[in-house]
Amino acid sequence: MKFRISRSALTEAVSQVSKAVSQKTTVPILTGIKVTVDEDGLWLTGSNSDLTIQVTIPSKQDDKEIVNMERIGSVVLPGRIFSDIVRKLPGEEVEWVVDERWKTTLRSAQAQFELKGLDPEEYPQLPQLREDQMFSMPADLLQSLIRQTGFAVSTSEARGVLTGVLWQLQEGTLTFVATDSHRLSRRQAEVETSAELTIQNVVVPGKSLSELAKILGDQNGWVDVVLSDNQIMVRADQLLFFSRLLEGTYPDTNRVIPQGGKTEVIASSKELLQSVDRAALISRDGRDNVIKCTLKEEGRVLIHSAAQDVGSVQEEVTARIKGEEMSISFNAQYMLDALRAVDSDEIQILFTGTMTPFVIQPADRDNALHLIVPIRTR
Amino acid sequence: MKFRISRSALTEAVSQVSKAVSQKTTVPILTGIKVTVDEDGLWLTGSNSDLTIQVTIPSKQDDKEIVNMERIGSVVLPGRIFSDIVRKLPGEEVEWVVDERWKTTLRSAQAQFELKGLDPEEYPQLPQLREDQMFSMPADLLQSLIRQTGFAVSTSEARGVLTGVLWQLQEGTLTFVATDSHRLSRRQAEVETSAELTIQNVVVPGKSLSELAKILGDQNGWVDVVLSDNQIMVRADQLLFFSRLLEGTYPDTNRVIPQGGKTEVIASSKELLQSVDRAALISRDGRDNVIKCTLKEEGRVLIHSAAQDVGSVQEEVTARIKGEEMSISFNAQYMLDALRAVDSDEIQILFTGTMTPFVIQPADRDNALHLIVPIRTR
Repeated sequence: MKFRISRSALTEAVSQVSKAVSQKTTVPILTGIKVTVDEDGLWLTGSNSDLTIQVTIPSKQDDKEIVNMERIGSVVLPGRIFSDIVRKLPGEEVEWVVDERWKTTLRSAQAQFELKGLDPEEYPQLPQLREDQMFSMPADLLQSLIRQTGFAVSTSEARGVLTGVLWQLQEGTLTFVATDSHRLSRRQAEVETSAELTIQNVVVPGKSLSELAKILGDQNGWVDVVLSDNQIMVRADQLLFFSRLLEGTYPDTNRVIPQGGKTEVIASSKELLQSVDRAALISRDGRDNVIKCTLKEEGRVLIHSAAQDVGSVQEEVTARIKGEEMSISFNAQYMLDALRAVDSDEIQILFTGTMTPFVIQPADRDNALHLIVPIRTR
Repeated sequence: MKFRISRSALTEAVSQVSKAVSQKTTVPILTGIKVTVDEDGLWLTGSNSDLTIQVTIPSKQDDKEIVNMERIGSVVLPGRIFSDIVRKLPGEEVEWVVDERWKTTLRSAQAQFELKGLDPEEYPQLPQLREDQMFSMPADLLQSLIRQTGFAVSTSEARGVLTGVLWQLQEGTLTFVATDSHRLSRRQAEVETSAELTIQNVVVPGKSLSELAKILGDQNGWVDVVLSDNQIMVRADQLLFFSRLLEGTYPDTNRVIPQGGKTEVIASSKELLQSVDRAALISRDGRDNVIKCTLKEEGRVLIHSAAQDVGSVQEEVTARIKGEEMSISFNAQYMLDALRAVDSDEIQILFTGTMTPFVIQPADRDNALHLIVPIRTR
């Protein structure tokens, strides 16, 4: 295995693949990055067994030579040190030689590193997926769907499927649902697919999705999503992302979403977010992080919180209010997460009663929804 | 106690004072910030018993009213939450009322906070220093002296005076010395003072100085330094900084600094720093973080490191070399710290032998010096 490669192209690819590389050493080979070179270019693969990222560096890009291959081959290099070295190499180009015992020499300007490589045959194969269950969507739209639901998954490993986000597809509409049973977030979007494709119970781990959202930040254009029984693959330009799926049946959440309300509030998302954010400075020192919201018919929302040893806060937000006056208490963090996820100037909140879940939505759209279960207070 | 104050002025002052506020609750009152108002303005004080910071906000600045005082008084507010609240208040102005039981009401636009305050009489008094031992210097020069020596103090509390930086003053020259007995850094500068003032054994805790260096970053112009038997005070515009001194006699370090050398190396600071930085990627995985440096008469410095499980690195830096060829091994981190502290394009290194300390200096000045004790290798 012998080749030369542009350092900047290598640095970028290594930084993407590193996101998947295992920090734990339970499977030692997975702390490495697999590097393969042939006539078409270079492949880098990182994995932590839950998720896998493969990045391609083509031999040529825009008629410029990126990889100059002399002898094909493959090697696994220790992930952390390899990515630190690549980032700090002095030259424009890296010369790369691997001997038959996987000893790897990297030369760049006045620096020369020798690293102990591992046998690439020991590295797990990429999952093979049939491409019959597939749809396409813009990369930034997929990122929004993840960002606007992923925070609501349960962080307790014991909660099984609730640590993941449910993906459903019906008649071209993709729906993401996440809940930890105290709150729920749902987001929908149209995607490009064959009309017949229906997906019912695909649950993707929240942790995988949060890595995917980071990677999608660097991507323009569209991505393909391919599903199998136990894997999901997202294919972007020069990048493949795989994640295992969670086993088990996701609960039916449609019945918990109220269809009407007793009181409807429409307010500025920003004003309400800032007020709740300040109130949370007090509530976080109390039990359960509770703040209380009182709706006044004349168009005021009063936000109140008190913590015994610290003090109290009273905030006021003007709003358009229809329906009954009421007071309701809830977890400040859940409210902050939901308000931050709404990318609309105005939000609508639909209250159904002081002890029943309420719904937060953008005021001008019905493709996103956040539900919060109130807290019983004295 | 009742007044109104510009929120931006308050935010800035609170952020400075917060650097001193205790995170530990061993002395509960010190987790608070003391606030005092009178006709001249507002005083904020934070302390963790080792160091104390007091910031003044004058009633008027450039003919603009900053503080509008209605009733003088003083209160201690919980530090962390108070500074979070101030940063997030919505209005331009903060209205402030404290009742006789220290209950404090802060109002700003639509937000109102009530905080449980504490009796300001319980808060420790500021140290009183006689101003007979005093000198003056530019704030940024004092910051440089701290930054170029402070990293060399011992971080082990058991090392007593070695956890501090020695300040000496003689004939108008201020000298800072820090050592953890494996390396030493010394920096000198001219200051403004009466010719007779001599300071011999003032040792300021490294932690206090690192906070002082941060604060000095916001200061223009000159600072006054006042010394007593057990306290140091630094006075800048609208700011007082106090630190206790360390007890004990600092060792005489002059005799460990070699006066000549066997081999002199002059090299580019940046090239050498980058080479050592890369070599450290390998050495940090080995024992003692050792790298080896070989000086070649023809003008090359070879830098080498190897770690059994990882691999090895070989770097080369061109240099002007006078004297014997030799090889010497040392801790990579000590070298990096010293090279980063030298603010000169070229550095001079003076080697006295493979097992005796060597000296790193800027090539064009003799006001700074870093000494490193080599490591014996097989």
